[in-house]
Amino acid sequence: MGEEERKGGGGGGEEEAAAAAEQARELQDAAAALLARTRADEEALRRRAAALQGELRRLRKAAAAAHADCDKVEEDLDRAACLITDGDIASLLPSKTHGAFLKMFLGPVNLRATRKEVQLKVKEEYNSYRDRTALLFLGFPVILLFLRQWLWNGCFPALPVQLYQAWLLFLYTTLALRENILRVNGSDIRPWWILHHYCAMLMALISLTWEIKGQPDCARKQRGVELFLCWAIMQGFVMMLQNRYQRQRLYTRIALGKAKRMDVVWGETAGVEGQLLLLCPLLFLLQGFEGYVGFLLLRTAHTGVIPEWQVVVCGILLIAMAIGNFANTVDTLIVKSRFKAKMKKSKGKRDLGTWPSPTGSLPTDSTAKA
Amino acid sequence: MGEEERKGGGGGGEEEAAAAAEQARELQDAAAALLARTRADEEALRRRAAALQGELRRLRKAAAAAHADCDKVEEDLDRAACLITDGDIASLLPSKTHGAFLKMFLGPVNLRATRKEVQLKVKEEYNSYRDRTALLFLGFPVILLFLRQWLWNGCFPALPVQLYQAWLLFLYTTLALRENILRVNGSDIRPWWILHHYCAMLMALISLTWEIKGQPDCARKQRGVELFLCWAIMQGFVMMLQNRYQRQRLYTRIALGKAKRMDVVWGETAGVEGQLLLLCPLLFLLQGFEGYVGFLLLRTAHTGVIPEWQVVVCGILLIAMAIGNFANTVDTLIVKSRFKAKMKKSKGKRDLGTWPSPTGSLPTDSTAKA
Repeated sequence: MGEEERKGGGGGGEEEAAAAAEQARELQDAAAALLARTRADEEALRRRAAALQGELRRLRKAAAAAHADCDKVEEDLDRAACLITDGDIASLLPSKTHGAFLKMFLGPVNLRATRKEVQLKVKEEYNSYRDRTALLFLGFPVILLFLRQWLWNGCFPALPVQLYQAWLLFLYTTLALRENILRVNGSDIRPWWILHHYCAMLMALISLTWEIKGQPDCARKQRGVELFLCWAIMQGFVMMLQNRYQRQRLYTRIALGKAKRMDVVWGETAGVEGQLLLLCPLLFLLQGFEGYVGFLLLRTAHTGVIPEWQVVVCGILLIAMAIGNFANTVDTLIVKSRFKAKMKKSKGKRDLGTWPSPTGSLPTDSTAKA
Repeated sequence: MGEEERKGGGGGGEEEAAAAAEQARELQDAAAALLARTRADEEALRRRAAALQGELRRLRKAAAAAHADCDKVEEDLDRAACLITDGDIASLLPSKTHGAFLKMFLGPVNLRATRKEVQLKVKEEYNSYRDRTALLFLGFPVILLFLRQWLWNGCFPALPVQLYQAWLLFLYTTLALRENILRVNGSDIRPWWILHHYCAMLMALISLTWEIKGQPDCARKQRGVELFLCWAIMQGFVMMLQNRYQRQRLYTRIALGKAKRMDVVWGETAGVEGQLLLLCPLLFLLQGFEGYVGFLLLRTAHTGVIPEWQVVVCGILLIAMAIGNFANTVDTLIVKSRFKAKMKKSKGKRDLGTWPSPTGSLPTDSTAKA
């Protein structure tokens, strides 16, 4: 009877299992069909978008050739371009190439978010990451300098400094990766700020191999480290100010429909207007100090106090970064003042505040749907 | 007249621009509708798949409870489960969580490829990355040891060794990132091999801060570096053998429908059967040597030749990795022999070769469509 029952149970199980296998097959077919259909639909939209982009280019050229200073045409073209680059269609268009850096670290993986709210989440997370980072950037060197005075008798031990350097290497690697990912997702971040992080990565790596020499004559030998920490404190302070005001400005600009939401204005660039009077002198001071630290490192190497190649390379890198930062800040200021002049000119004709925001309503919309 | 012409051009341009803006709006609406529709369709399929997975669990439990050794039921259930986890529906199901490592480096970005052929491209690229890596892994230390003998008079200069260490840090970071990404995309890679790469990352980082001391008594002071390079040569050699045979085995297994295509069998694990006689002794030898190098490092630190903390930590890490590698290799061998026994048992009843491959035809199919 036990045998009977088992057989009976097996038979029922067999039918159910066969039904489940059949269901799985149907599900697989449905999924394959959905993927194929979606891909075809996307391809059709992609073709329409490409045609429209060509048309927009043609119209813009025609308008420029006719020297027609027609605001209506310009506005229509701007609005159309904005809808294509920042609307839902954007996620279907071929993205910016990933670039060698991302390929090197991650391989040929897809990093583009198709859903707008995921893109925004990436951006938001990047902003809050910068906030947390700025705190550490400020706190780490302050603690090191404090402990040197009160615990270490004026002479850094190697381990805490190396921990800090390892953290810097990690930090700049993650920033470079995240900014590259933001670029793939349509952000307008200036290439220099990413390049700047590559330089900083290299410097952190080199500084790890740089032996921290102690007694005797500790103060003289560790002068480079000390200067670098002072620079980091200033950098952390400016970063916190920037993060706060740039985020504020970004929200304002999004509300006005001027900026795409994926715009990242890292570091010393645009987006701060009222605070410019406070920030600009600080930025130039910081850049000058950065170059000065680089110069001091080179002099240290030249006079033979620390004659290692690491000192020379770090000095050169710091000076190069200072020059690049300065040039980019100045360039941003010029672009900003030009933009302002243009706005002033067109303000007389119509009110800017009434421009519709092409993306303003999208995230709420899709969140409500999800 | 010039004025007239300009106005006329402006008027035509105005109409065209308005039409383009209208087209952009239509395109935006179509894209938003497509995204919403696709999401709803996907959600429906997802719900069906979840229900079916529940049903499969129930049937499996029932079959186990009935002690029914019915091959037909088991086969149906396996086939259904395989279709769900490896078919087109898999890309729609919620993926494995990204894990702290990926979040730390990349933020909350989406790393899942929806299209099967993209997933396969990631996997393929990972394999060829391993191939290239193995060459460098072999070549780098060979060149260093060769140059020491013929150019550097038996004493390593610091820079080339540090370059090698920096490369190791980069290599292990990228491997850890890529393997985490493969996991997100459905690969079955053992957690230990990823953990192993975290340990190796840490070791490379620590070794960078470890000062390479030279004359006098260079041979004695650099004994650790030398041993490490010898280990790396062996490691590179074994990696090349493994890569070659594992890829071969993977293709065979895919053809037989036994393995999911995203299976990664990194390093010392399964997938090599005929070559097991050659590989197993090599693997155990390598692991023993790894532990021995760790032990030598600890002894060096104990006898006070290089009394830095880096030596101690590197020694402990090497021993831990050797033990973990050994345990995982043994575990894999046990799993493999169990699987073999099961296969032998069921082979008497039906021919394995006639099993349909649920994924075998998909990639070609979708490539043809694309």
